[in-house]
Amino acid sequence: MSNNKESQYQFPELLTTFPALFVAHVQINRPKKYNAISPDVFHSLASVFDKLSTDEDVRAILLSGVGQHFSAGLDVTAASSSGPVSKPSASDDIARRTWKVRRHVYDYQNGMNAIERCEKPVICLLHGVVYGAGIDIAVAADVRYCASGVKFSVKEVDVGLAADVGTLTRLPKIGVSYSWAKEVVYTARVFGAEEAAKVGFVSKVVKSKDDLMKEGMELAQLIATKSPVAVQSSKALLDFSRDRPVADGLAYTAVWNAAMVQSEDVTKAMMSGLKKTKTTFEKL
Amino acid sequence: MSNNKESQYQFPELLTTFPALFVAHVQINRPKKYNAISPDVFHSLASVFDKLSTDEDVRAILLSGVGQHFSAGLDVTAASSSGPVSKPSASDDIARRTWKVRRHVYDYQNGMNAIERCEKPVICLLHGVVYGAGIDIAVAADVRYCASGVKFSVKEVDVGLAADVGTLTRLPKIGVSYSWAKEVVYTARVFGAEEAAKVGFVSKVVKSKDDLMKEGMELAQLIATKSPVAVQSSKALLDFSRDRPVADGLAYTAVWNAAMVQSEDVTKAMMSGLKKTKTTFEKL
Amino acid sequence: MSNNKESQYQFPELLTTFPALFVAHVQINRPKKYNAISPDVFHSLASVFDKLSTDEDVRAILLSGVGQHFSAGLDVTAASSSGPVSKPSASDDIARRTWKVRRHVYDYQNGMNAIERCEKPVICLLHGVVYGAGIDIAVAADVRYCASGVKFSVKEVDVGLAADVGTLTRLPKIGVSYSWAKEVVYTARVFGAEEAAKVGFVSKVVKSKDDLMKEGMELAQLIATKSPVAVQSSKALLDFSRDRPVADGLAYTAVWNAAMVQSEDVTKAMMSGLKKTKTTFEKL
Amino acid sequence: MSNNKESQYQFPELLTTFPALFVAHVQINRPKKYNAISPDVFHSLASVFDKLSTDEDVRAILLSGVGQHFSAGLDVTAASSSGPVSKPSASDDIARRTWKVRRHVYDYQNGMNAIERCEKPVICLLHGVVYGAGIDIAVAADVRYCASGVKFSVKEVDVGLAADVGTLTRLPKIGVSYSWAKEVVYTARVFGAEEAAKVGFVSKVVKSKDDLMKEGMELAQLIATKSPVAVQSSKALLDFSRDRPVADGLAYTAVWNAAMVQSEDVTKAMMSGLKKTKTTFEKL
Amino acid sequence: MSNNKESQYQFPELLTTFPALFVAHVQINRPKKYNAISPDVFHSLASVFDKLSTDEDVRAILLSGVGQHFSAGLDVTAASSSGPVSKPSASDDIARRTWKVRRHVYDYQNGMNAIERCEKPVICLLHGVVYGAGIDIAVAADVRYCASGVKFSVKEVDVGLAADVGTLTRLPKIGVSYSWAKEVVYTARVFGAEEAAKVGFVSKVVKSKDDLMKEGMELAQLIATKSPVAVQSSKALLDFSRDRPVADGLAYTAVWNAAMVQSEDVTKAMMSGLKKTKTTFEKL
Amino acid sequence: MSNNKESQYQFPELLTTFPALFVAHVQINRPKKYNAISPDVFHSLASVFDKLSTDEDVRAILLSGVGQHFSAGLDVTAASSSGPVSKPSASDDIARRTWKVRRHVYDYQNGMNAIERCEKPVICLLHGVVYGAGIDIAVAADVRYCASGVKFSVKEVDVGLAADVGTLTRLPKIGVSYSWAKEVVYTARVFGAEEAAKVGFVSKVVKSKDDLMKEGMELAQLIATKSPVAVQSSKALLDFSRDRPVADGLAYTAVWNAAMVQSEDVTKAMMSGLKKTKTTFEKL
Repeated sequence: MSNNKESQYQFPELLTTFPALFVAHVQINRPKKYNAISPDVFHSLASVFDKLSTDEDVRAILLSGVGQHFSAGLDVTAASSSGPVSKPSASDDIARRTWKVRRHVYDYQNGMNAIERCEKPVICLLHGVVYGAGIDIAVAADVRYCASGVKFSVKEVDVGLAADVGTLTRLPKIGVSYSWAKEVVYTARVFGAEEAAKVGFVSKVVKSKDDLMKEGMELAQLIATKSPVAVQSSKALLDFSRDRPVADGLAYTAVWNAAMVQSEDVTKAMMSGLKKTKTTFEKL
Repeated sequence: MSNNKESQYQFPELLTTFPALFVAHVQINRPKKYNAISPDVFHSLASVFDKLSTDEDVRAILLSGVGQHFSAGLDVTAASSSGPVSKPSASDDIARRTWKVRRHVYDYQNGMNAIERCEKPVICLLHGVVYGAGIDIAVAADVRYCASGVKFSVKEVDVGLAADVGTLTRLPKIGVSYSWAKEVVYTARVFGAEEAAKVGFVSKVVKSKDDLMKEGMELAQLIATKSPVAVQSSKALLDFSRDRPVADGLAYTAVWNAAMVQSEDVTKAMMSGLKKTKTTFEKL
Repeated sequence: MSNNKESQYQFPELLTTFPALFVAHVQINRPKKYNAISPDVFHSLASVFDKLSTDEDVRAILLSGVGQHFSAGLDVTAASSSGPVSKPSASDDIARRTWKVRRHVYDYQNGMNAIERCEKPVICLLHGVVYGAGIDIAVAADVRYCASGVKFSVKEVDVGLAADVGTLTRLPKIGVSYSWAKEVVYTARVFGAEEAAKVGFVSKVVKSKDDLMKEGMELAQLIATKSPVAVQSSKALLDFSRDRPVADGLAYTAVWNAAMVQSEDVTKAMMSGLKKTKTTFEKL
Repeated sequence: MSNNKESQYQFPELLTTFPALFVAHVQINRPKKYNAISPDVFHSLASVFDKLSTDEDVRAILLSGVGQHFSAGLDVTAASSSGPVSKPSASDDIARRTWKVRRHVYDYQNGMNAIERCEKPVICLLHGVVYGAGIDIAVAADVRYCASGVKFSVKEVDVGLAADVGTLTRLPKIGVSYSWAKEVVYTARVFGAEEAAKVGFVSKVVKSKDDLMKEGMELAQLIATKSPVAVQSSKALLDFSRDRPVADGLAYTAVWNAAMVQSEDVTKAMMSGLKKTKTTFEKL
Repeated sequence: MSNNKESQYQFPELLTTFPALFVAHVQINRPKKYNAISPDVFHSLASVFDKLSTDEDVRAILLSGVGQHFSAGLDVTAASSSGPVSKPSASDDIARRTWKVRRHVYDYQNGMNAIERCEKPVICLLHGVVYGAGIDIAVAADVRYCASGVKFSVKEVDVGLAADVGTLTRLPKIGVSYSWAKEVVYTARVFGAEEAAKVGFVSKVVKSKDDLMKEGMELAQLIATKSPVAVQSSKALLDFSRDRPVADGLAYTAVWNAAMVQSEDVTKAMMSGLKKTKTTFEKL
Repeated sequence: MSNNKESQYQFPELLTTFPALFVAHVQINRPKKYNAISPDVFHSLASVFDKLSTDEDVRAILLSGVGQHFSAGLDVTAASSSGPVSKPSASDDIARRTWKVRRHVYDYQNGMNAIERCEKPVICLLHGVVYGAGIDIAVAADVRYCASGVKFSVKEVDVGLAADVGTLTRLPKIGVSYSWAKEVVYTARVFGAEEAAKVGFVSKVVKSKDDLMKEGMELAQLIATKSPVAVQSSKALLDFSRDRPVADGLAYTAVWNAAMVQSEDVTKAMMSGLKKTKTTFEKL
């Protein structure tokens, strides 16, 4: 199945495979460039996660990098020729230049947002260097695991920029110390696995990239055995609630579940729990 | 006093006692059912916490379970006969069935919300098994302590459901790692006391259920010696601010305290602090 | 330079110096009163941080206390003669008294808010006793470091008050365990450096006040070497996003950066990174 | 049927009848007191509208006053003996007095809120004098009609108060000129039917109270012929959206309707439309 | 030019022309079906307005219907075969059916949202019958004009549905009487041009469809002579502010205009104003 | 009294008088420049309204222009030399220029915001020409009256700008047709008194400037006879509620009034109402 399927997931600079039942694996595929994020990567991330979002054969998604590093951050050379840090056209006045840059930023944000708006859970496996745009990607995912030798940096300040494709927006909302978050943003200093785990930036540290893939796969397969109605509803409800008052979160949840609890998955899951048997849930 | 008082607090499936001056203790009281949460428990939680909210003899509330376990979660059998997971009436179309389920979900949420909207602080003492609806209750409380042998699980996914009576709404707002929160939600895996303490889900771990009751009581009694104007205002202002921008939180706080700082409790508390004596605050 | 500059920063009860290039140091200067916060301190905090906010010679600000203690909290004696806890005028009715108290609370909040709205990052160095209003100040800062012997207390409940100049509004938003936050608020109990670090209230603990000043200065100087466009934009975007849904945070960020990425700082920072040389950024 | 039903709707100071199929009529019933709003009226409004909200025999509700006047506003004498404007207990300090007043205000607001949270549409028929609390009631209803001789006044300022049970909160959200709204609030001046219609405060003016009852009944009966799923969903979605950004309103609407469009009412309504026949919808 | 351009704007069921410099005209093109809105129309609306949004040759857009009627609303037959009111697949359980319907609703909302998110102003010209989905389209536009013989109806209740692609979300935010809005929603009654103008639903009524086209064209051409930076910024800022507190609206506006006021359009527009000459603004 | 008082209200380009008990009159005082708004006017508006906000001798404020016109809008010449439309410094890069412009915009917005945050009601009397920044001022006021010959224009688009000091933020929130609002914003066309009254932009039209002053004075004096606690509370609560969900507006109102209803103004006002006598309220 998966070969045929993989052929539908050909996007530039990304490698998408289906290593187990209901599990997809997206890898940033520019190892010679340390997986630097080019405009193509941003666009492909949007395409692949929007496609996975409604793919009934997928229930959990791994996201990592081909080779040693997750990502060294924005590909400055590529972005300079056509993106937000490109030379402005001499004939544009500042309003027009700025307007175009804003469109570019929205365009790049769209790549990260696709990870968050993807209906399926995304497990981000962080290894090697994870700098700048690599962090923007990581904070848009649901779960973050890392290998012990990882090197993180919210690098944008070091290139004269405030991070603008997600890091500054999502860091205050992922349950890490705000004092720590501001410190690593203002200094762009490198931090490691242990520090990331202590503040809750990642929820697990393992020894090597190999172990990381193994642990990530186990988590993905575990999630894939669960009712997709339950798991995907949970993602939608957690993210909606994060952004709103408790009363709004509860109201939205009640409306959502009023239909969902009528799912046959409830009966199946309950029977399976009582009888200690495995069950198979219909696609979603 | 308390015997007479207890007679006013007779609600099905809950046991409410007044073990010390200004301290109430609410216990889920279905030990043979592992304190599974029936529709009666939801309704009684709403009744008892709404009543405690304006009870002038109460300044701190302990919440635990009778017997070994805090709660094994929703009582599926009971809920199936009259609640949101009950068989739909054959004569209802889907709109009417869904409408009724939504009313049920609101009804159950109301039980948890009563804990949060209760004007008095609620200390949740977690022991034995704390699954599903047990977690929904815990996250609505102010403070969470646990015994070292506790077993937690956000169990709903395992019954084919997204948690809909509070867990998914409140988890993103209690200062725990969002990566960890999503992981335990999507997998329904069991986690223990140490992990809960590390991410800040609980703020204290003690050895046994006995120690838990002792520590909980000490905390409750300490809070009960404080000005009830100060403590109960603090609860109201923290929860209001959690849900809103800083500027709104400050504006609301200023309006609130403009009257409250004129309390005689301020004078009393200051004198007591200067003279190192105990003071008695009027009821609230 | 700095002597001349310091003469422009003479505000009552504060000591403002410029110990290194682009670094300001604000100290609460009432050591004989354990740096208790008088109305003058509140007003001076507003004045000095509003002035520093647009001072082009400043890129990072240290905030500490002269002498052994950071601050013992509100100066009750001073506040009683002219502030929110002063005796009401006999001729005022309750509405007018309350109106005036509210103005006082806004006035005091304004001192803390100036720290948050200051465009430059503020690093709060906490030592000795940090009680009550000392905590209100600390949570308005960007980064919190402390010395190992520090003693913290959200003291307001012990004077019969809910904290109203920032602590209750900002504690739910700085990434600490909400269970822990409510516990320390309701009890006013003292907690130390280790506990503060574990929950993420501070992001670093060092041995002594001397070490604290040294570490703080190193952090401030590191930040001061970075592009001020990047650092100050980051502060603005983090705080805006903290208070709003992710979609609003991203939209605001895109508008902000649409102009900012055109900064010459980007080119300079990139060149400097590539050539491993130091660069000098224009003032802001 | 209705006699039996009316016996279940006996609440002090209100008269509730069921004048036509699916239509309820609630009348304030203190004509000798010009229908002044006593604490009993507030409580009865909460009780009756919460009960009507889930009454399957009701699809539209008329709200008017027995006798010549809709309501002369708060019953100051009654409210003075037990409500927010009652003399404070001499033994209470200001914090406790204020706390109790706030509970009273919430209690009174609850009466008006029940009109808004009632799942059925409420048509408010305004006649004679509509002062103070009468306006608070009117703005919580869905539709406002009036008789030509009506006299309106946002009277609270004339009793030394800001309106606190709904008028000031809802006036900025019902589509009337904000300049006009502030003018009538600050002056408490009387305005008539024509002015009320011009700014959109009411959507219809008829000649007499008799005509008002007739027009109100026609509207109620027309609404009662429609699918209750469609009408009651519309109320819920309009009010949710009014309070939130367009994007949130649309998201909530999509979740709500995802189940509701599967109603058999859709098929019935469509068939009825095509065949130009009447249809009967199941209860809700 | 426009012929060539029109060839790039071939979308099913819509007719897009460029009748004057910088003016586009989108027409719903199913006159034999009274311009009923099929899934193709929804998709084409999304495509054409997203394309026009960044088309530098366009500064104002007219939106009307080919033939006598603007639109008779949702094409029920077409929607039944593939949209939200289609027969559910027998093999789907209710959760899966509901999930799919929600995706359909989002998909349809996306067509209307494209009108609102289009960077260019959209002038909606309403004529003949404007029912159901026709209203959803109209309220997403910037300006609404109508011909005197127009017949409006928020028709959804008559097909057993709450309107879910925009009407219920946007009606409370366009400055019309909320009492009137709820009345026309709950009854689905027809209303005409005069009533629509009185409440502000439309801002101009003209005699015939011919006059409507003439007036619409005059408005579009007038807007097209203005600075596109100024006009398109205004649309963005009005819609952002509508959904948020005044303080947020102002903050966003300041960030936006900080770059925009540096536009050469400002100088050009000022010179043109002073010299009473026409000017030409660069594309945007 | 007033001469002495006026001497405390000397601010550049404004004329402030005290024509009646408790009534202040602020006039833009650059008649030779058609009351064009210079940086001095913005700053003086902030200063005078912040000072009036806590002036106990003031209960209502008139705002008009010296001479024939209210204001022709921004003084472009003055603003060009030091404000947001001034020539950028050649040595600044775009980030720094933009940063400075944003500070300027905030600075100008602050002048308008002072009108809204002023605790006293502001009645704006509009005459002659009211263009551009004149509209920004008008929409920040509480009540708008105009003379019949007035000429309004949201002029900013004609100078190549989106209005950024309040018009675009406040227009969607003052109860006018959104279709009309966008039309007058996008075209900058002139509209007159009748149209302004029809949509609710102004709430009264009178014949001449003399009549306008007379009517404004009558309204101001009427407001000044009312309890200042009631009137000023009403302003605060209306504006807070306008920006927030109904539930938040009600909660804030309850906290506010819990103290305010204990005012002696309530007793005084009630007695005065019953006895049909005049009363005198204490200052606020």
